[in-house]
Amino acid sequence: MDIGIIGAGAVGLLFAGYLGKRHNVTVYARRKEQREQLEAYGVTVWREGRRGQTDVQAKSLSALDSRHDLVILAVKGYDLDESLFITVPTETPLLFLQNGIGHMDLLKTLPYDTVMAASVEHGALKENEHTVLHKGVGATNIALVRGASGPLQRLLEEKDAAFPFVKEDDYEAMLLRKLFINAIINPLTAIAGCVNGEVASNPYYSALIEQAYGELLHLHPHMEEVISLEDIKRVCMNTAQNRSSMLKDVENGRMTEIESILGELVRKTSPRDMPVMNTLYLLVKGKESAGRMT
Amino acid sequence: MDIGIIGAGAVGLLFAGYLGKRHNVTVYARRKEQREQLEAYGVTVWREGRRGQTDVQAKSLSALDSRHDLVILAVKGYDLDESLFITVPTETPLLFLQNGIGHMDLLKTLPYDTVMAASVEHGALKENEHTVLHKGVGATNIALVRGASGPLQRLLEEKDAAFPFVKEDDYEAMLLRKLFINAIINPLTAIAGCVNGEVASNPYYSALIEQAYGELLHLHPHMEEVISLEDIKRVCMNTAQNRSSMLKDVENGRMTEIESILGELVRKTSPRDMPVMNTLYLLVKGKESAGRMT
Repeated sequence: MDIGIIGAGAVGLLFAGYLGKRHNVTVYARRKEQREQLEAYGVTVWREGRRGQTDVQAKSLSALDSRHDLVILAVKGYDLDESLFITVPTETPLLFLQNGIGHMDLLKTLPYDTVMAASVEHGALKENEHTVLHKGVGATNIALVRGASGPLQRLLEEKDAAFPFVKEDDYEAMLLRKLFINAIINPLTAIAGCVNGEVASNPYYSALIEQAYGELLHLHPHMEEVISLEDIKRVCMNTAQNRSSMLKDVENGRMTEIESILGELVRKTSPRDMPVMNTLYLLVKGKESAGRMT
Repeated sequence: MDIGIIGAGAVGLLFAGYLGKRHNVTVYARRKEQREQLEAYGVTVWREGRRGQTDVQAKSLSALDSRHDLVILAVKGYDLDESLFITVPTETPLLFLQNGIGHMDLLKTLPYDTVMAASVEHGALKENEHTVLHKGVGATNIALVRGASGPLQRLLEEKDAAFPFVKEDDYEAMLLRKLFINAIINPLTAIAGCVNGEVASNPYYSALIEQAYGELLHLHPHMEEVISLEDIKRVCMNTAQNRSSMLKDVENGRMTEIESILGELVRKTSPRDMPVMNTLYLLVKGKESAGRMT
């Protein structure tokens, strides 16, 4: 396939590095320096101490053209905007990689024929403009929101053990499942300043996980069968030594994904119905704004 | 007067340093090394770069005797226990300096004739076993819980501008006022990791101050006239550069006063009625236990 990837952060580079091995990949990056480095060096993926290099093309967003068989949106939720891909014809299939459910309304109302959503479970850390560290091999779960399943089938046919794709049937349940995990673990680790494992093993944080889970379940009762409290604690233990991206963002005074993960939820819901989530939201917003002011 | 002071932390030393100038003061300290240093050097109070030295006697608790005209309890709330002063005759007036309302039940049920409670507004930092830094001159507000006002009058007669006493009429309102301030500012600064001023100026933390105040007011509606939301924000701004004791305790992996300040409240009340306070409580407990485990 001819694939366009919008966004050249950790996830965008990871997809470019793996997909570029079989497909013709163009990365759309905002900054000229990064585009030049991507054109010159390709994308380098480090995994378990070994490096793999993949040639890609790099262009500015204004050069986004109509020939792609698939366009992947790999920007953070807070940078996602329809104007990013306004020049892409509505016949082109789109694949969205964002966390949270902030983009759920957009997915539903877009005029595109084929729309897919993904929940990305890989651990990725951007090292420099063209290098990404593949820290944890997970899967890319993809569900069709609407349209033709052709491009999804093509991705499923890739048999790369280091970069597997898995088909999901219900995109809302898939995104909500990831949301439950992100909405609970990320803010809590960012506020507590600890690794994922500690929020499950510390009895006080664990009590907060339970209360937060109860609040989310109250809002989405059918999710009880999709993700249990034990599932969430298991994710913590499986990634026990990880520092969540939100923790790292707060520590480095960067913008976090709190808006796409919790912003929507707390604004839609009364603080009375989600008091723990609301408190966690305000504490992360407070840390975020303090870090960015200094 | 002949005064016994139980506890030789920052507040105990501060009281010994000032009261020792006019009264015969005995400090009861747990550790032998500290008693030896207090006997040898007296108490040194540093204030605005000047030092004052006061001779005191120092004894172990087992030597607590019956001749005192007043016994001051200057231990932290979590160390307060009736067994501390079991040898003190019930005619001896007692003065309690603890934060919070954890000792409120004790105050009510003690078999002593004269009981007083204080709300201490001084800033004090213990430098070493016999030296305390008097960082902020406030007042010691004292209210009679029951009994004779003689010892209270004697304290009120001290005219030391650096160590003033103020009489309060309603000890419950006095302790609750301090509780409102401590219950909101201390946990929030400890979790946010910031100085007092920032929790009032940061809009997200400020929103949490409001919600926490609302919860406390719901529990103690008559307090609206004793302390307003503006009063609490004013305390933050008046101590803008201060790092709260709870923040310092958390940073140093020490036990905090969270139990005496919030423990009682959250156990007496359903988390549903105090969700923000409950979340702050669990976050401080989590940080505290994580710090003490490492």
